[in-house]
Amino acid sequence: MNLEDPALIDRSDPAAYIAEAAEAYRNWGRWGEDDRLGTLNLIGDAERARAAALVREGRVLSLAQSFDMDGPQRGWRRRTNPVHTMLDTGTDAERGTQGFPHGIGGADDVIAMPLQCSTQWDGLGHIFDRGMAWNGRRAGDVVTSDGDLVTGIEHTADRIVGRGVLLDLGAHLRPQTGELEDGYAITSADLDACIAAQSGTGASSAVGRGDLLLVRTGRLSRARREGWGEYAGGPSAGLSVTTAGWLRSRDVAAVATDTWGFEVRPNEFDVAFQPLHQIAIPNMGLTIGEMWDLDALAQACRERGRWEFLLVAPPLPITGAVGSPVNPLAIL
Amino acid sequence: MNLEDPALIDRSDPAAYIAEAAEAYRNWGRWGEDDRLGTLNLIGDAERARAAALVREGRVLSLAQSFDMDGPQRGWRRRTNPVHTMLDTGTDAERGTQGFPHGIGGADDVIAMPLQCSTQWDGLGHIFDRGMAWNGRRAGDVVTSDGDLVTGIEHTADRIVGRGVLLDLGAHLRPQTGELEDGYAITSADLDACIAAQSGTGASSAVGRGDLLLVRTGRLSRARREGWGEYAGGPSAGLSVTTAGWLRSRDVAAVATDTWGFEVRPNEFDVAFQPLHQIAIPNMGLTIGEMWDLDALAQACRERGRWEFLLVAPPLPITGAVGSPVNPLAIL
Amino acid sequence: MNLEDPALIDRSDPAAYIAEAAEAYRNWGRWGEDDRLGTLNLIGDAERARAAALVREGRVLSLAQSFDMDGPQRGWRRRTNPVHTMLDTGTDAERGTQGFPHGIGGADDVIAMPLQCSTQWDGLGHIFDRGMAWNGRRAGDVVTSDGDLVTGIEHTADRIVGRGVLLDLGAHLRPQTGELEDGYAITSADLDACIAAQSGTGASSAVGRGDLLLVRTGRLSRARREGWGEYAGGPSAGLSVTTAGWLRSRDVAAVATDTWGFEVRPNEFDVAFQPLHQIAIPNMGLTIGEMWDLDALAQACRERGRWEFLLVAPPLPITGAVGSPVNPLAIL
Amino acid sequence: MNLEDPALIDRSDPAAYIAEAAEAYRNWGRWGEDDRLGTLNLIGDAERARAAALVREGRVLSLAQSFDMDGPQRGWRRRTNPVHTMLDTGTDAERGTQGFPHGIGGADDVIAMPLQCSTQWDGLGHIFDRGMAWNGRRAGDVVTSDGDLVTGIEHTADRIVGRGVLLDLGAHLRPQTGELEDGYAITSADLDACIAAQSGTGASSAVGRGDLLLVRTGRLSRARREGWGEYAGGPSAGLSVTTAGWLRSRDVAAVATDTWGFEVRPNEFDVAFQPLHQIAIPNMGLTIGEMWDLDALAQACRERGRWEFLLVAPPLPITGAVGSPVNPLAIL
Repeated sequence: MNLEDPALIDRSDPAAYIAEAAEAYRNWGRWGEDDRLGTLNLIGDAERARAAALVREGRVLSLAQSFDMDGPQRGWRRRTNPVHTMLDTGTDAERGTQGFPHGIGGADDVIAMPLQCSTQWDGLGHIFDRGMAWNGRRAGDVVTSDGDLVTGIEHTADRIVGRGVLLDLGAHLRPQTGELEDGYAITSADLDACIAAQSGTGASSAVGRGDLLLVRTGRLSRARREGWGEYAGGPSAGLSVTTAGWLRSRDVAAVATDTWGFEVRPNEFDVAFQPLHQIAIPNMGLTIGEMWDLDALAQACRERGRWEFLLVAPPLPITGAVGSPVNPLAIL
Repeated sequence: MNLEDPALIDRSDPAAYIAEAAEAYRNWGRWGEDDRLGTLNLIGDAERARAAALVREGRVLSLAQSFDMDGPQRGWRRRTNPVHTMLDTGTDAERGTQGFPHGIGGADDVIAMPLQCSTQWDGLGHIFDRGMAWNGRRAGDVVTSDGDLVTGIEHTADRIVGRGVLLDLGAHLRPQTGELEDGYAITSADLDACIAAQSGTGASSAVGRGDLLLVRTGRLSRARREGWGEYAGGPSAGLSVTTAGWLRSRDVAAVATDTWGFEVRPNEFDVAFQPLHQIAIPNMGLTIGEMWDLDALAQACRERGRWEFLLVAPPLPITGAVGSPVNPLAIL
Repeated sequence: MNLEDPALIDRSDPAAYIAEAAEAYRNWGRWGEDDRLGTLNLIGDAERARAAALVREGRVLSLAQSFDMDGPQRGWRRRTNPVHTMLDTGTDAERGTQGFPHGIGGADDVIAMPLQCSTQWDGLGHIFDRGMAWNGRRAGDVVTSDGDLVTGIEHTADRIVGRGVLLDLGAHLRPQTGELEDGYAITSADLDACIAAQSGTGASSAVGRGDLLLVRTGRLSRARREGWGEYAGGPSAGLSVTTAGWLRSRDVAAVATDTWGFEVRPNEFDVAFQPLHQIAIPNMGLTIGEMWDLDALAQACRERGRWEFLLVAPPLPITGAVGSPVNPLAIL
Repeated sequence: MNLEDPALIDRSDPAAYIAEAAEAYRNWGRWGEDDRLGTLNLIGDAERARAAALVREGRVLSLAQSFDMDGPQRGWRRRTNPVHTMLDTGTDAERGTQGFPHGIGGADDVIAMPLQCSTQWDGLGHIFDRGMAWNGRRAGDVVTSDGDLVTGIEHTADRIVGRGVLLDLGAHLRPQTGELEDGYAITSADLDACIAAQSGTGASSAVGRGDLLLVRTGRLSRARREGWGEYAGGPSAGLSVTTAGWLRSRDVAAVATDTWGFEVRPNEFDVAFQPLHQIAIPNMGLTIGEMWDLDALAQACRERGRWEFLLVAPPLPITGAVGSPVNPLAIL
């Protein structure tokens, strides 16, 4: 089966495509039987040191959306927006009802949120392929009601620091609007062409081993302008299922996009749900970022003609979590 | 009043001390009437670029504790440990009960936690002084039940990247154990002596304008060995209230410790609660980190004879939060 | 000012109306300075014994909506629908991953929900009138971030048992559809006429001292048929602000409706928000039920030509809560 | 095997005992293949009408503990105490920061709690026996991460109204203290003797078909006096595993106790966990109440020489829940 040409996909048979792609791109065993990190193994100290050397100005951009009730979630699989409540307030403190001495007052707060509600990393326990988790483990041996007992996001706490590269597919393919239309499947050829185009001013867009690849579609820009609508779970541009081999051969450490679901939606089969996730997470061991805000970064990169930077995106080490909210920082 | 000599503190009158220290060290208006950042203003792009240049090896250490039910909280002011629950699991996926096509399965999860429960930043809305918040605003104008309407932690999303310096007071003052005893008040003289001692192999321990200062007491090491006990809220070594002037004159951007409460406990007055917080946060505009894990970092610094590094500690941009959990990364 | 004729309301001046009605119907001090119960004082043991004697068949109807993510909330003032998650599941138990002996398995679960999200009682601390709470206390002395320190819902734990009377205004006024149109303000005259009409077969619809009055508008029936839409917070039939005097003179112990907000919406002033709440809760001390499901009860009452029953509607005694979810039971 | 004599239990083999008792007392199929209610089927309208007729005085007692952070939970299987937080407060309202017109102010609140944290009903999906749930269903077909898809507590919303009978074993067996010692296993003989003793003044303690049986051990009285200690999960008096047959032959509809775990702890085998649950819930279909406060009720019954009453204990109809907090009301 030709796995790389979008035109040759048999839309009626996602299972066959997924099975063959999973087999072709699988990384099981590559980093040992006990591995918990997948492609994050591809970033080592040397890669990080080189990435730090990319910092020229010290300018920092946060790639996180706001975490609050005004987020995109509409209840899909019980995902809600974050609920932030106060345990103590300044109104209480000012009124003197808190019971503290010498005029000190305090405010505390609480958050309740799905770990997948906003800007996030999908951990390796987030997706399974036919009952199997990353590295060939049975899904039920890895993630129970007690959480991810093997590949919990806490294992990545000190890992996600490296060279970030932004590919602004929105601007590359739609120079006028900067926004891809819903359902547009970004292909490997698109990625290569974007790299070539952006690299007109240097090699800063090249994507290779251990890199943290950021792909901007413009979907979030539209949601900002038009309201969330179906941003969470609805139609969107995104990576084609056929880019799995490209991601595998470049050996990127992680990929993130400005969309809810990373891959194109509707998916490229008649009846399907996130087939690229199914290939990439449990088979390749690829960590995926979703709902990142890449707009300000795209502008900053464009202004500088430079698309690489130090990316520091530490998950919260929540024991056994299958993902984590994150405030990724690009340092230029 | 002599504010700097711990021996001269009138233990019976915290209010007088606090009032005079607040007046002496206050930064209100220093960064304009609309300021939301306080001493974080002291880190600019140039400082960040210099900090990035400190990276030599690319080695990363996470300074976060684990976020889970096994944390230190015992219910003080309704602070609980994080509760992490699953919305979908691998056992469900493996059994085929999730209703997805082509063999894909998924796991989602949820967290509920006080923002002050584990490794954290205290935002500027966290503490008030006699009804006033940072920059001279009334507490009730800043933090209501809707959260911090002015100085919410989201404003710091792209700020906390800079030069970190670790002062290992535990090892400096107690070379045998590396752990200060409960109630030990670290003085300005202690800080200076530690800098001098650590700088035997270079100037890497110097503390100055815009730095992110980390102070290790050894309190967490003991909790690891003996169990949490009263780690959250009980006795501990910590900074003396008399270090407020030192912190102000060095113009540090932020300070963090490995203790629950940053300052020495019991506090240095007969009846008191966190007087240094009351001086530092609303008056100086100082961002404070608590419950950081500095043990591995201390060992790494000692081995290298080098106590400075790039520190990247991005809060989650939770709109209106008075603090944030954080996974701070030291990059050596 | 004529407070009772809806036609004479000055729509431009809600404040004047509210002030006068509050003064006219106020119950402050009626049950002593320390009172925590308001009109719930009107139900005594004798009333409860008489109410129990109304039970003839032993037939029970639950008047609660379902508590789940499919509820009506759309985020108004951070009210969400209930989020129910599992701590342990049958899939885990069946797979044998729970670590229990001799084949026992278990499932546990967690709920997170606003207390005002679904079928509920509004406690006396839920609404304030110009900074004052029930019985003439200052709002800030009653409800702080620590909850309702005086009139918390826990004080009503053993109180809400009594004679329930259903007035089906929907069926009375709109016999064809059984549903009042949005914005219809139910007047005192409507209530009296409904009582008269329903009492054709007996006196079972009479409303008097200590009764628990249930008013059906048909709004929930429509939401069931058409979807929630703006059920939570949007337009609806409901009680006119002018019924305050009627409720006060009948000395009902509590009132509940099948609508989100008890009173008509939009409210009967040009710019207003829930003026009847403002009069009834802090001034009269009236406990109010909202989002009750009265449809099956209406049918059962109609079939029997009998509109009174034993009503048992115990709140959860959540310490300091300003309201409570409830599963009210009508026992016929 | 003799299942009824505690002295003959083989402490080394809980599995054999449980298997035989499960077989002996199983109710699978008794109420049809689709049954969701188990022994709650044993209460019909006639039973409820008779129970209502037990009301003489109209006196109501709440049998619920308080729901708050001061509860007994210590983290076992991630069970926490309820966390109650405010979304709006009286301090805010009084200060005028809420943005409402004409002086209305409001307070809202939120609860997050395990459904098993305090006074509760265990639903039929709460416990499994060797992978099987109530009525012979596979555990994984019943309770997934989506909750209890078959026997969720919502199906009992209009069921739990009936004749309550209190057996005060604490007072019966330990007249001086009213409190059984930890580890005391209440036997069928104890239950019969208590009925006989309490019925000295009438037949009001008889236990039969469709009754709601309440068993007081005095464990909560002690916790009130001494502090929670190990109330949640630790040693306690409780029903002997050998009472399963007694409960089955009396055909009680439900049973509740004043202890954390209903049955005696430590359990009556060398290595075991809640064997009576394993027999009673999935096999008999018995709904079990735990952590009820029976102290005031015991006193009231003793004073009256009358141990029966109308019991109304409606769970919150949380869709798919395996249990529910409850405020049970005894109406005398």
